[in-house]
Amino acid sequence: MTAPRVGRPGSTAELLADAAVREAALALRPHSAPEETVARAAWSVLTEPGDGVAGVLVQELGAAGALDLVLSEVPRETAAPSVGRRSLAEGLNRWRLRGDFTTISASLTDALDVSARMLLPGDPEWPEGLADLGPHGPHVLWVRGDPSVLGRTATVSIVGARASTGYGEQIAAELSGDLAGSGTVVVSGGAYGIDGAAHRAALGVGGATVAFLAGGVDRWYPSGHHRLFERICASGAVVSEVPCGAAPTRWRFLERNRLIAATGRATVVVEAGWRSGTLNTAGHAATLGRPLGAVPGPVSSASSAGCHRLLREYDAVCVTRAAEVRELWGEGAAEPLAEERHDPDRIRLLDALSTRAPRESTELARRSGLPAERVRGLLGMLDLEGVVTRRDPGWIRLR
Amino acid sequence: MTAPRVGRPGSTAELLADAAVREAALALRPHSAPEETVARAAWSVLTEPGDGVAGVLVQELGAAGALDLVLSEVPRETAAPSVGRRSLAEGLNRWRLRGDFTTISASLTDALDVSARMLLPGDPEWPEGLADLGPHGPHVLWVRGDPSVLGRTATVSIVGARASTGYGEQIAAELSGDLAGSGTVVVSGGAYGIDGAAHRAALGVGGATVAFLAGGVDRWYPSGHHRLFERICASGAVVSEVPCGAAPTRWRFLERNRLIAATGRATVVVEAGWRSGTLNTAGHAATLGRPLGAVPGPVSSASSAGCHRLLREYDAVCVTRAAEVRELWGEGAAEPLAEERHDPDRIRLLDALSTRAPRESTELARRSGLPAERVRGLLGMLDLEGVVTRRDPGWIRLR
Repeated sequence: MTAPRVGRPGSTAELLADAAVREAALALRPHSAPEETVARAAWSVLTEPGDGVAGVLVQELGAAGALDLVLSEVPRETAAPSVGRRSLAEGLNRWRLRGDFTTISASLTDALDVSARMLLPGDPEWPEGLADLGPHGPHVLWVRGDPSVLGRTATVSIVGARASTGYGEQIAAELSGDLAGSGTVVVSGGAYGIDGAAHRAALGVGGATVAFLAGGVDRWYPSGHHRLFERICASGAVVSEVPCGAAPTRWRFLERNRLIAATGRATVVVEAGWRSGTLNTAGHAATLGRPLGAVPGPVSSASSAGCHRLLREYDAVCVTRAAEVRELWGEGAAEPLAEERHDPDRIRLLDALSTRAPRESTELARRSGLPAERVRGLLGMLDLEGVVTRRDPGWIRLR
Repeated sequence: MTAPRVGRPGSTAELLADAAVREAALALRPHSAPEETVARAAWSVLTEPGDGVAGVLVQELGAAGALDLVLSEVPRETAAPSVGRRSLAEGLNRWRLRGDFTTISASLTDALDVSARMLLPGDPEWPEGLADLGPHGPHVLWVRGDPSVLGRTATVSIVGARASTGYGEQIAAELSGDLAGSGTVVVSGGAYGIDGAAHRAALGVGGATVAFLAGGVDRWYPSGHHRLFERICASGAVVSEVPCGAAPTRWRFLERNRLIAATGRATVVVEAGWRSGTLNTAGHAATLGRPLGAVPGPVSSASSAGCHRLLREYDAVCVTRAAEVRELWGEGAAEPLAEERHDPDRIRLLDALSTRAPRESTELARRSGLPAERVRGLLGMLDLEGVVTRRDPGWIRLR
């Protein structure tokens, strides 16, 4: 491929006029307007995840129009009424520090190099739930594997601590295997511990799973999960909003969590320490109004302290099995609870009966404290049910 | 003592005229009107626990007046406007099956025999919380040990399954020991398992504890807890609403649970199976508006299934330590949560810094996506905090 120009473009058109950039854009998204492809890629390069000012600007001016504002050397008034003068000035200051021909071009060609797909809002595969992030949503999703799993609506996010226990990993595997096995896409963060157990169990039952990464999809992190990510790509997707080459910084981890929370219909935290980063994902889920489940564990386990905190402080729902997770989004009741036979008179009459000594109905009335008439009525019922039987001179209870 | 008359009294006055009855009443409550003592004892004999019709009748006519209605052979209209004709007729039918001179007299003399005290509503030791039971409250409390602990307002009910695990017993002991050690009276049901662990831990720290029994206080049930009940009597109280000699029937267990729930400021369930009787106590606590706590456990433990059910279905609060139990009644916050430093700019700048390669502020601005001015301001702060330091040609992050 052609090498891109050196230096900084002065407009979206100038950027697009560069043969290398244009070529890469068309290769990545052959059926889309290259202007949109390039502008979105540029925004993915210029901004840190979750930059709401950039989001509003792109919403109001379009990706290319908003990019023009950044690239143009001539300061001018914004046509985006929702962005204040000061916010815009600060935004321009930070966005202009990035984004030359080479970097923007590289975001496209690096994706091509690892056969990543580039999804944009409006694509049929674009996760429906991301719309709830509003202007804080991603400009683009870089996807390795099968992008179509991202378009499925039956999703659940199963997340948890890296510092997991065998207990937590087992529960994560049970929940994920059950849900993935019945067609729900299991979304997680690809980390060691609970995330890994959730991904693996989904793969183990032939289900689909999605890993959202904090860094670029060309640098799989953690590297010890290289083989796992390969397997995920074979039937699901490994996804990021930051371009290839971007390092998984702490900030990007925190913002990556909002994508996990927004993509799942519900979020389930399996294990988390008292200050676990997983609580950040749970916080995003709560903010987004997504049902939040937490798996309890021994109170003596530090790895369950965060889950118990979610139950106490975030009003998370206690979940112990897959059926209860499904209930989070209203799919059936976990198990119809057979009502116990709590008829007080019945209990009192059974209390009054002996399995050995036959007792007359008046004696049973005295012992149970029930009217004799009620006792006789109940005895008839219990007789029919085979719970009591006559034995002269009265009744006995059958074992 | 004199033997009581044989047969059935026709009025409260006739009952009281019996020397044996009167003598026992005065011996049990020397400073009270014997009429009230005898009438209350009679109601404790005539009714099963929780009989609301009897409760309303006693509230409106007084214990003696209401008893007259039962004992009188001549049917007459009730002067208790809240009791319907049909309810009253049914009540008279069941109450009249019990209650001759001998039985009522025995309820008093049997109590004397085991040195039990007889508490009545209005006594300073009468548990304040029982008022919330309204007409379903007990007519009398038969108490062995120190009745004064019942009058204390700092109480907590700690209950759980008989089929407990070592885990549950340990948590019960930790919670109970901590709470009893700081002056809270630990209320429970004297059963094997969690109840026993709670009572023992309270005794172990020299605290006070109360056991509510389902049967009479002269027949300690379970008998294997004989030594435990003796120890409870030495510094706390063993209590029942049914007279001496009454068997602990299933109905009385269920109704006993309402006393436990009403006496504690809050109820904590430590372990319970899916259909545990302990859930009945929890249900009473919820009905009474008492704060309800549940201790989580491994989802694989059948002994925690009931607790998880309480968290899911009864909106119980997840409690893992004594401080969180205290929070149930609003005593201090469990632990002020030190707010994490979630200043986004700060996180992003720290992400952009290296511990080895010095970076200039403009480079840090580019990497962090923050305006250069903001980067310089933050670097000054972080320098003061000793988190970063200058190293030519820029800044490094200190470990």
